[in-house]
Amino acid sequence: MTNAPTTDPPAAAGEVPPTVNMPNSALFTDQYELTMLQASLHSGAAHRRSVFEAFARRLPAGRRYGVVAGTGRLLEALATFRFDDAQLAFLSDAGIVDDTTLAWLADFRFTGSISGYAEGEAYFPNSPILTVESAFAEACILETLILSILNHDSAIASAASRMTGAAAGRPCIEMGSRRTHEEAAVAAARAAIIGGFASTSNLEAGRRYGLPTVGTAAHSFTLLHDSERAAFEAQVAALGRGTSLLVDTYDVEQGVRTAVEVAGPELGAVRLDSGDLVAQARWVRELLDDLGNHSTKIVVTSDLDEFAIGLLASAPVDSYGVGTSLVTGSGAPTAGMVYKLVSRQDDDGTFISVAKAAKNKASVGGLKQAMRRLDEHGIAQVEVVGIGISPANDGDDRPLVQQFVKDGVVLPGWTGAEAVHRAAERHTRSVAELPGAVRRLQRGEPVIPTEYEEAAS
Amino acid sequence: MTNAPTTDPPAAAGEVPPTVNMPNSALFTDQYELTMLQASLHSGAAHRRSVFEAFARRLPAGRRYGVVAGTGRLLEALATFRFDDAQLAFLSDAGIVDDTTLAWLADFRFTGSISGYAEGEAYFPNSPILTVESAFAEACILETLILSILNHDSAIASAASRMTGAAAGRPCIEMGSRRTHEEAAVAAARAAIIGGFASTSNLEAGRRYGLPTVGTAAHSFTLLHDSERAAFEAQVAALGRGTSLLVDTYDVEQGVRTAVEVAGPELGAVRLDSGDLVAQARWVRELLDDLGNHSTKIVVTSDLDEFAIGLLASAPVDSYGVGTSLVTGSGAPTAGMVYKLVSRQDDDGTFISVAKAAKNKASVGGLKQAMRRLDEHGIAQVEVVGIGISPANDGDDRPLVQQFVKDGVVLPGWTGAEAVHRAAERHTRSVAELPGAVRRLQRGEPVIPTEYEEAAS
Repeated sequence: MTNAPTTDPPAAAGEVPPTVNMPNSALFTDQYELTMLQASLHSGAAHRRSVFEAFARRLPAGRRYGVVAGTGRLLEALATFRFDDAQLAFLSDAGIVDDTTLAWLADFRFTGSISGYAEGEAYFPNSPILTVESAFAEACILETLILSILNHDSAIASAASRMTGAAAGRPCIEMGSRRTHEEAAVAAARAAIIGGFASTSNLEAGRRYGLPTVGTAAHSFTLLHDSERAAFEAQVAALGRGTSLLVDTYDVEQGVRTAVEVAGPELGAVRLDSGDLVAQARWVRELLDDLGNHSTKIVVTSDLDEFAIGLLASAPVDSYGVGTSLVTGSGAPTAGMVYKLVSRQDDDGTFISVAKAAKNKASVGGLKQAMRRLDEHGIAQVEVVGIGISPANDGDDRPLVQQFVKDGVVLPGWTGAEAVHRAAERHTRSVAELPGAVRRLQRGEPVIPTEYEEAAS
Repeated sequence: MTNAPTTDPPAAAGEVPPTVNMPNSALFTDQYELTMLQASLHSGAAHRRSVFEAFARRLPAGRRYGVVAGTGRLLEALATFRFDDAQLAFLSDAGIVDDTTLAWLADFRFTGSISGYAEGEAYFPNSPILTVESAFAEACILETLILSILNHDSAIASAASRMTGAAAGRPCIEMGSRRTHEEAAVAAARAAIIGGFASTSNLEAGRRYGLPTVGTAAHSFTLLHDSERAAFEAQVAALGRGTSLLVDTYDVEQGVRTAVEVAGPELGAVRLDSGDLVAQARWVRELLDDLGNHSTKIVVTSDLDEFAIGLLASAPVDSYGVGTSLVTGSGAPTAGMVYKLVSRQDDDGTFISVAKAAKNKASVGGLKQAMRRLDEHGIAQVEVVGIGISPANDGDDRPLVQQFVKDGVVLPGWTGAEAVHRAAERHTRSVAELPGAVRRLQRGEPVIPTEYEEAAS
């Protein structure tokens, strides 16, 4: 691995990926990877050293930046990427690969190196987000796992970042689990936290990654009881006066008055989940203040997205609960990253830059390095990608590529709960470094351009 | 459970859900379900018998029908919905619920009944897709799991159905794993098969549900070798002449000629992944025929959706590989179903229909039955939902609600590989029964209306 020293040193060693309860990941794989493996084992090319790169040719339409997420989950999933008896029996019984290939898979352990942009980092078109260096065979069979995780998690983190930007410091709560696949929901909660969310409703995400979890009650709880008052009394008795009461099951004004009567001035919050939230938040705030509940907060939910959050900026809202639009990437449910062979050895051991020449899908060959070029105020001006070289550093510029795996060993600091925490901090720093236009919600171009530098030939 | 006899009897008993490798599902749960549980245990209302219903208030914009999927996965996940030591320790350590609630959760086994539309069935706004009858406590804590699975899987199956409709009998291949979360990818492959797809590239889906899997090679395989010819020779040597060769890495015409030279007249297929696919398929077909390869098929891929498939109807294409747009629901990545309390007992044991009165979110209270009313030609005219009653049956009409769980026992036939196979067959029958306008791709209204029938009061 030839990457430059990182600027973001890994945390102390000793983290253990939370593999408990994690499924074997070996068959999260498109069949063609194993048929390519078989064919390349047959031709001998399987052993050629290769460089694969994951990158996005473009951002989702109109987006100004993306946010990397998923790398930690990928490194955790690598630990369970093993062809054990169940996986081998399926491949054998279904006749998908031959005995030579089965024997190779049975012994498979990834022995290569992986580097790239750390989670939380902003990215742009053609940023070299993940680079895998190994024998072709080893990098080839990881393609689907790598892309599934990066494409999903980065889509969610990118949407989350726009929402937390629009929220301008008010806490955002992730509550979209019900609108996406049950395991994707856990990953979405994790990615939301990386993108700046304060908490999640998803308990498994809390357990797996140590994320703050929240939640109080739904309309069904009110409807279960003989009256709204009975429901509020039950909730306050069980959860305390600091709880959030959902006040829009029947009439909002009456709901607020009943909530205050039941919980008193210590009522934690009221939640509004329907109607014209801007107007409603204003008069509910006045009503709460009139009733003496100055410290009772207002939480709004109800199909919010970054635009709705922006519209609520002037309303007296204390926090936003976001569901559907977050977990579906707010119009961009996948980050559209691809994974391409960019360099490989020939029979003499010389690395050859490769690129597919088909129209409209050209890839830039070669092992890459990347740098965010900063001006004298520390604001990013351009993303510089060096092909086969590290781009020149003016001194203040920030190298972007970190090493995650060296010769098959996952380096400490990039997995588990701590990695999520660090990624969230990195996200804050990375976005703060970008030009202010990054916070515009309307469609536009990437907020900084990507340029290439090549070794003089 | 008061549901009428089903028209689609379950298969023979003895199926075992493939729980091997499946995670504990108990914490795929929003925290508020457990706080509601705690508060209702405290008030005593937890034990009130309740009816919850999952339904979609509307279809995604412009869609004419939806396709139910996920029920089988839900029933499989119920088997692992257990609060074991790891789950209880988290809830206790994080202080999410009190000891009384922890003790209740430790003993939790679902003892209620579940009925609804079977997988593969077409649905419309307000179709009672899933009904859970149990104590409030038991139905409450399943909300997120139920919605996550139904919303995701139904979104994919609904998109898949439009695509297979547009393909008009030509096989569609699911290859979107890389564009969605790695576990969602497995569920997406399963839902795609239910929606009429012929096969998937996802190996774990093949293993778990016995689905047909396919896959041959990517551009990287060609680029790995010293020439396209060397790559084709390696692939044919390892996989046989019946393989599919990807011919657009460099020049398509030369690629086709080389493929035929290497594999001869027995070449299985060529794959086209870029460019103007309609024009290209035409001249590639002519070229193959000129070269004597009349039985060599043409597979097209490259960001296809139902509209692109429709456009290719007149081109000599043999099968379609679909990725991104399938696994993201082709613009509707979640089905938008909600899960609402519609009826509950009061202290006298009388069931009371409940509905939230908040504007724009009204639910129709009461336990529902549903019927697809057919005309004399067997074509559906209207979906009739009976509130508290079974709608009148003209004789030819088809009851839609099936029972899946009775008093805590999952009934045979609704899980495992066989359930997927049966759901795919049901999908074919269900769509064939709808008016022909169901196959229109342009935006429109639901192809049949939904009407309510109530008991005379």
